[in-house]
Amino acid sequence: MDIRGFSFSTIEAAIKIAGRKDLALIFSEVPAIAAAVFTTSTVKAAPVLVSSEHIASGLAQALVVNSGNANACTGEAGMKVAQETTRLVAHALGIDTTAVQVCSTGVIGVQMPMERIRNAIPALVDGLSSGTLDDIAQAIMTTDTFPKMEASSGQAGGVSYTVAGIAKGAGMIMPNMATMLSLIITDAVIEPTFLQQSFRHAVDNSFNAITVDGDMSTNDTCLIMANGMAGNPVITAGSAEGISFTLILNDVLLSLAKQIVKDGEGATKFVEIRVTGARDDSDAKRAAMAIANSSLVKTAFFGQDANWGRIFAAVGYSGAEVDQSRLSLNFNEVCMARNGIFAGEDAEVRGTEVLKQKEFTVSVDLGIGSGTATVYTSDLTHEYININADYRS
Amino acid sequence: MDIRGFSFSTIEAAIKIAGRKDLALIFSEVPAIAAAVFTTSTVKAAPVLVSSEHIASGLAQALVVNSGNANACTGEAGMKVAQETTRLVAHALGIDTTAVQVCSTGVIGVQMPMERIRNAIPALVDGLSSGTLDDIAQAIMTTDTFPKMEASSGQAGGVSYTVAGIAKGAGMIMPNMATMLSLIITDAVIEPTFLQQSFRHAVDNSFNAITVDGDMSTNDTCLIMANGMAGNPVITAGSAEGISFTLILNDVLLSLAKQIVKDGEGATKFVEIRVTGARDDSDAKRAAMAIANSSLVKTAFFGQDANWGRIFAAVGYSGAEVDQSRLSLNFNEVCMARNGIFAGEDAEVRGTEVLKQKEFTVSVDLGIGSGTATVYTSDLTHEYININADYRS
Repeated sequence: MDIRGFSFSTIEAAIKIAGRKDLALIFSEVPAIAAAVFTTSTVKAAPVLVSSEHIASGLAQALVVNSGNANACTGEAGMKVAQETTRLVAHALGIDTTAVQVCSTGVIGVQMPMERIRNAIPALVDGLSSGTLDDIAQAIMTTDTFPKMEASSGQAGGVSYTVAGIAKGAGMIMPNMATMLSLIITDAVIEPTFLQQSFRHAVDNSFNAITVDGDMSTNDTCLIMANGMAGNPVITAGSAEGISFTLILNDVLLSLAKQIVKDGEGATKFVEIRVTGARDDSDAKRAAMAIANSSLVKTAFFGQDANWGRIFAAVGYSGAEVDQSRLSLNFNEVCMARNGIFAGEDAEVRGTEVLKQKEFTVSVDLGIGSGTATVYTSDLTHEYININADYRS
Repeated sequence: MDIRGFSFSTIEAAIKIAGRKDLALIFSEVPAIAAAVFTTSTVKAAPVLVSSEHIASGLAQALVVNSGNANACTGEAGMKVAQETTRLVAHALGIDTTAVQVCSTGVIGVQMPMERIRNAIPALVDGLSSGTLDDIAQAIMTTDTFPKMEASSGQAGGVSYTVAGIAKGAGMIMPNMATMLSLIITDAVIEPTFLQQSFRHAVDNSFNAITVDGDMSTNDTCLIMANGMAGNPVITAGSAEGISFTLILNDVLLSLAKQIVKDGEGATKFVEIRVTGARDDSDAKRAAMAIANSSLVKTAFFGQDANWGRIFAAVGYSGAEVDQSRLSLNFNEVCMARNGIFAGEDAEVRGTEVLKQKEFTVSVDLGIGSGTATVYTSDLTHEYININADYRS
């Protein structure tokens, strides 16, 4: 995979635990046009506040990211850490401070060990020739059990470009945003406003369509940097190349989002929830998210129990317009209920078989309009409780 | 406990499992003024639809209730069962069909065994002289581990009256409504409009202020019947007796609601969440409910982990107006965070001690206005998953 003009470095700064890489740097040879979507929570981590200030310029050239500490609920001291981190990185790289984005993920409410970060930055910058994007994906993991990465290539005017991304997730997975961190880089030359639009759209269809536990984080950040080093003719809205770029970006983000759900804390099932026939798309999303977030539904998935009534119950309290005599439900191709009532004992047996699979689709038709939505969720398991009952220890 | 004019009966109808009482009847000698609050879900069980039609008269004289089957998502056939049940009970008692309320609780989506109910009704009515309210509390249990009951007495014009109630809960506990079923009876003479107002108010402060898993049920019903047999001078709004009645009703409902949380599926902790300093009361409730419903917060309670950052994170996405530099948090009397930041290592140690208790209070001050709210929740445990992974089997 070749993403021209980007280099990578990771280092062990011992932010929380010794013996693992926990500080990472992505650098672009030239300033990249950049766009970002941050958590909509009113309790925002210091790096989110600093990065959203910096992104206002529309440009970014470096991203420094740490795991082990979220630098959230850390007050003025936390703000100083985030600011100083960007300043030190900028200085070492010889670029503007506002061209540096900063992200943190890990435990909330603990002050960052600034001394360790300060000490680590020179070697971090020195290591830029040797690292890979995969190293970064490893370094940002917290309770993730595998690194999340995706890349895809396209062409514009006969010149090929690459879109690559990494993500970390596991807990606190819920829109908006769904992921705690996702970092996308591309060497494509692209019109800045169009990049922003396609990016927002792709985020809505991916990270804002997944849920693990319904908790949104203080640190959620999704960032894209496009450095133009591929040298293709500029990609613009409305062109064939624009459509192609949008699809590639969507694929990369959706793949990362699905990886996050599959690695949801303690998850044993990956479930696609499709709602059709809603009054409109937002009603469909409301119903789909109510199902995807229901503890009772998610526990039934874990128990491989074809308890379809709980799904209708969730639709009922979702706030979506519902006529219960028109509801229908499928587990994959097995019709579980039609016109609001049970499809019969045979459906029970066959539906249970579907739920024994690791991945399946739950389709609900509201039978009212043409609104649709698809979201992705996991089951709720003993392991989720094990992980979160002692995440900090 | 003497609640004049009410009689009770329970019977084994083998609706789901043989060997336990699962059909119950409450009868008032005279028509009682009645009020009810039903689930706001758009997927409503058949008995909810039938009962809400019947309650329009403002009167009720009998209540028939079953456990083992919710008669929800059962279509036209389910409606016929609910209607026929009220008709048969009315006929046997010699009262109007609309004076009979019907409630069901249990599994969703399975047709009711009407034949068994039909066969059981004569003996159920015959048994009215022998039963107690406690028998009814036993008969309506599903995954509840103990029957829920409360009673309190008051005086009006020198005449004493009683307010008594039962409830069942366990899973699908979330406003609005919080309980699946709660039935309140009183022999007080009370002005009907005032009864409705005090009842709604008491429901908001109790059943609508608790949550176990954030799931609302298709069957939630809270019903009050006041038969006036105490013979006290009529209780009206604005009088000292009116205030006294309101307080007694509040106490009974709040006690039942708290019993439901304590018996939340798999719960090992009972947590009171108090939010103060919010822009207004609804913002306070929003923040309190976000905390009370957060899987991450509830799992930390189970793990006895003083992970206060997750509480601030929940406040952050609650939708309540928040200035994170003004947030403060206590576990009981231990200040965990002030002005948005951690109170220090000593707080960690003392806060962890608080979380080791079976009951404690989490207080969050938003530091903005004078809005307040109190809600009650439980922890999220392995046992919750055990119960719900195979509730139907």
